[in-house]
Amino acid sequence: MSVSLGELAVRFGCELRGDPDTRIDGVAPLGAGREHALSFLANPRYLRALATTRASAVVLDRASAASSPVPCLVSDNPYATFARIAAYLFPPPPVTPGIHPSAVVDRAARIDPTAHVGACAVIEAGAQIGARSFVGPHCFLASGVVVGADVRLVARVCLGEGVSLGSRIVIHPGAVLGADGFGFAPDRGVFVKVPQLGGVRIGDDVEIGANTTIDRGALGDTIVEEGVKLDNLIQIAHNARIGAHTVIAASTGVSGSVTIGRRCMIGGAVGFAGHISICDDVSIAGYSVITHTIKRPGVYSGLIPSEEISTWRRIVARLKRIELLAARVAAVEQKLNMRASGAQSEDDE
Amino acid sequence: MSVSLGELAVRFGCELRGDPDTRIDGVAPLGAGREHALSFLANPRYLRALATTRASAVVLDRASAASSPVPCLVSDNPYATFARIAAYLFPPPPVTPGIHPSAVVDRAARIDPTAHVGACAVIEAGAQIGARSFVGPHCFLASGVVVGADVRLVARVCLGEGVSLGSRIVIHPGAVLGADGFGFAPDRGVFVKVPQLGGVRIGDDVEIGANTTIDRGALGDTIVEEGVKLDNLIQIAHNARIGAHTVIAASTGVSGSVTIGRRCMIGGAVGFAGHISICDDVSIAGYSVITHTIKRPGVYSGLIPSEEISTWRRIVARLKRIELLAARVAAVEQKLNMRASGAQSEDDE
Amino acid sequence: MSVSLGELAVRFGCELRGDPDTRIDGVAPLGAGREHALSFLANPRYLRALATTRASAVVLDRASAASSPVPCLVSDNPYATFARIAAYLFPPPPVTPGIHPSAVVDRAARIDPTAHVGACAVIEAGAQIGARSFVGPHCFLASGVVVGADVRLVARVCLGEGVSLGSRIVIHPGAVLGADGFGFAPDRGVFVKVPQLGGVRIGDDVEIGANTTIDRGALGDTIVEEGVKLDNLIQIAHNARIGAHTVIAASTGVSGSVTIGRRCMIGGAVGFAGHISICDDVSIAGYSVITHTIKRPGVYSGLIPSEEISTWRRIVARLKRIELLAARVAAVEQKLNMRASGAQSEDDE
Repeated sequence: MSVSLGELAVRFGCELRGDPDTRIDGVAPLGAGREHALSFLANPRYLRALATTRASAVVLDRASAASSPVPCLVSDNPYATFARIAAYLFPPPPVTPGIHPSAVVDRAARIDPTAHVGACAVIEAGAQIGARSFVGPHCFLASGVVVGADVRLVARVCLGEGVSLGSRIVIHPGAVLGADGFGFAPDRGVFVKVPQLGGVRIGDDVEIGANTTIDRGALGDTIVEEGVKLDNLIQIAHNARIGAHTVIAASTGVSGSVTIGRRCMIGGAVGFAGHISICDDVSIAGYSVITHTIKRPGVYSGLIPSEEISTWRRIVARLKRIELLAARVAAVEQKLNMRASGAQSEDDE
Repeated sequence: MSVSLGELAVRFGCELRGDPDTRIDGVAPLGAGREHALSFLANPRYLRALATTRASAVVLDRASAASSPVPCLVSDNPYATFARIAAYLFPPPPVTPGIHPSAVVDRAARIDPTAHVGACAVIEAGAQIGARSFVGPHCFLASGVVVGADVRLVARVCLGEGVSLGSRIVIHPGAVLGADGFGFAPDRGVFVKVPQLGGVRIGDDVEIGANTTIDRGALGDTIVEEGVKLDNLIQIAHNARIGAHTVIAASTGVSGSVTIGRRCMIGGAVGFAGHISICDDVSIAGYSVITHTIKRPGVYSGLIPSEEISTWRRIVARLKRIELLAARVAAVEQKLNMRASGAQSEDDE
Repeated sequence: MSVSLGELAVRFGCELRGDPDTRIDGVAPLGAGREHALSFLANPRYLRALATTRASAVVLDRASAASSPVPCLVSDNPYATFARIAAYLFPPPPVTPGIHPSAVVDRAARIDPTAHVGACAVIEAGAQIGARSFVGPHCFLASGVVVGADVRLVARVCLGEGVSLGSRIVIHPGAVLGADGFGFAPDRGVFVKVPQLGGVRIGDDVEIGANTTIDRGALGDTIVEEGVKLDNLIQIAHNARIGAHTVIAASTGVSGSVTIGRRCMIGGAVGFAGHISICDDVSIAGYSVITHTIKRPGVYSGLIPSEEISTWRRIVARLKRIELLAARVAAVEQKLNMRASGAQSEDDE
């Protein structure tokens, strides 16, 4: 597709600077532009790359516009505007209605005639698939699963019993929704399985990454609210609830019955202890472990950056003997008759 | 299914308090009960919810029984008893014998006539499937795989060469057993693959979560003993051995040739260095790293809870300079002529 | 297959000590040898096991050869030589040319006549598969995917749009290459998807573990260079680049636009912050988090070994109050008039 910059300005509500007839047929990074490519500048750190860009046009904010050597689209949020234009230039492939002959679809499944069911997909009785939804190859939809409209199950997505999806959801290959939660009751040295009878409910406009797992609830449901974005290899345990428009990076684990608020930003490989709540608008640095309920919006971290190994080993050795260091300080204070001050009372626990 | 509370009391060996004709047709959390639902109280912390429950009956222990406003079943282990009753009320769907026409089953595979092979499953030559076992859609059983009786491979389970399963095992979608272990010999700047020739042996009554991976051994086998419960996204490397009735939470990684004892409880995202042993009856807090053999039963941890980020940054900055803090303490001690005491000798390393 | 030790010595360029007619038909660990098995000794730590081995022959280095009670092959790199011999004795099964009748292969795909496409595999239009490559059951190759020669996709491998593989690559079940990178632009409380238009390029001789995910680039490609070995459950985010002959252990996460050099050795569950570079020849201990660019080859770590829990809790409690400990030391120094020394100036931040 080739469009004029002027048309993009109108369609995406940007102020245009430069030749409206500039042709755009693709997108490129600022540093690797080419003729007819549109690029973007969202971070002033890259201003230098702007000066030498070979892109034919750039989306940027008002402050940077004067520095652009090429025509530009001015936007309050250049990255979001660029994303929307890129999606316009490269729309997902249209959904071809119909069921591939190799798919195995139970007669009691209800597939919208505008939906697509791909090769070797398996759809059980009672499953429902909404209008224009795409069920890619090797997907499995268990009995009773509900899929809304305009959903895209890219390939090999597994939706177990009790899973229901809203609309405009994207799920990447290998994701497993609706496996049994990890519930076992210890009893005289063995573990008795606690039947997992709840479901998984996914709100509209959610995206779920490759090989991510979201277990069904034990009694109630596991819930992912609208607009949530989950990266790859994330674990969401039974009865967790992820609030609307929260984003979670890869390899994070959310334990059972955890509630995460709305608009949270969770880094990669974060862990949450079970049964805690995180309020709205919390950011958590990657590689942090959250063990307690968080009631105040803000940024939290437990990340410890690595060091060259000999330095690190000295630090760890000291850390392991930190009790001894504190005892030495206390002995010094005692010798100096400094033990009465408030600062030391923490020691007398 | 609807049963009387009296019948449940008899069948599950509980003392009944209240009307034996109370009808039970389902289960519910204590706080969200409804008529004809059975709930449970396993933790005295939830005693308050008991007072207002709308469940028709509750399983609880002797001490809490007097506080119940509704009929109850008294059990020494209310959670396990509840689990068994829930399993009785909601049995897994019966296994329909037969092979789905879309499944690809080698003529030289031996499928018990009471077993089920689902849609698009692929079973290679020499594979064996025992009585009443359920092989769900999209499962793959490589040549020579052995599956015992009453096994449930929910869907899309991959069993590679050399995998053998006992009986009454449940494996959730996406799990991969029997992929090659990660074995490479460095040789002049490149890595030579070490053929992985061992197998994977899974004991009776094991449950394995979604997208968990258990590699085949290099020479000997990787072994998961009876009753082990593994959550989602766990990595078990080649030649590891997990002792009977051990439970491991999600995202944990067990390195090569690690031996974990019986009845251990391993939290989520725990890591084990290679070639170490953990004795029986060890508990490990989530997010801990175990680098050495553990010979004493007990609880171990390396978990550091997160903080608000400005607090945390100050802590990390201090930690990174802990050597300097120790040096300052040593200087103070020297000035005070305190260096002779035993406590300080640790510094002279 | 049964061969003589003399033939192995010639074929693999080893010095032979002992009877060249010794028959070898398999391999075994040193401690669990049996007649006609070949074992190896790569670590002098296991010299004791050599003395009592029941293997018929052993691969070892010159220094250990004198201690061998059985015939031996002398090699500068016994482990690599053993790996090569094991691969010779146990070659992967030959690739049977042809397309399984249950596979769904688009007419516009180009499959080399010597390649194999397994049961229920799905190959879209424009995909190419090179000579002698093996595409196992349940694999999915999206439109336009390129697979080189002698590649082995064991089973259920997903190659999304824009993925291209070199030759002699092995990919284990559940791996997903080419899912969308995790790119969203925040805009007034919601997230706008940034189309992921790049690809994934995998070099020759790469091995990729089970359930590992490698996302396609946003604009440019995600790149894994030749000879890289990736274990299971690894996340490689969009636009990352992994240098040649680097090995990465299980459960590690590589964030977006990270560049890792050549010949790096990355432990398990390591994390990398986004947009950083790691130079060649860096080793990183497992469970470390790398937040900054590394420009110097060496070993880095952030691993903290666990402790018995009561000890650990005391350490964490002290760590959380390390600011207070530093303040106490400063107070002592002040009382002693020691604040002028350079060592303390770090405190005045």
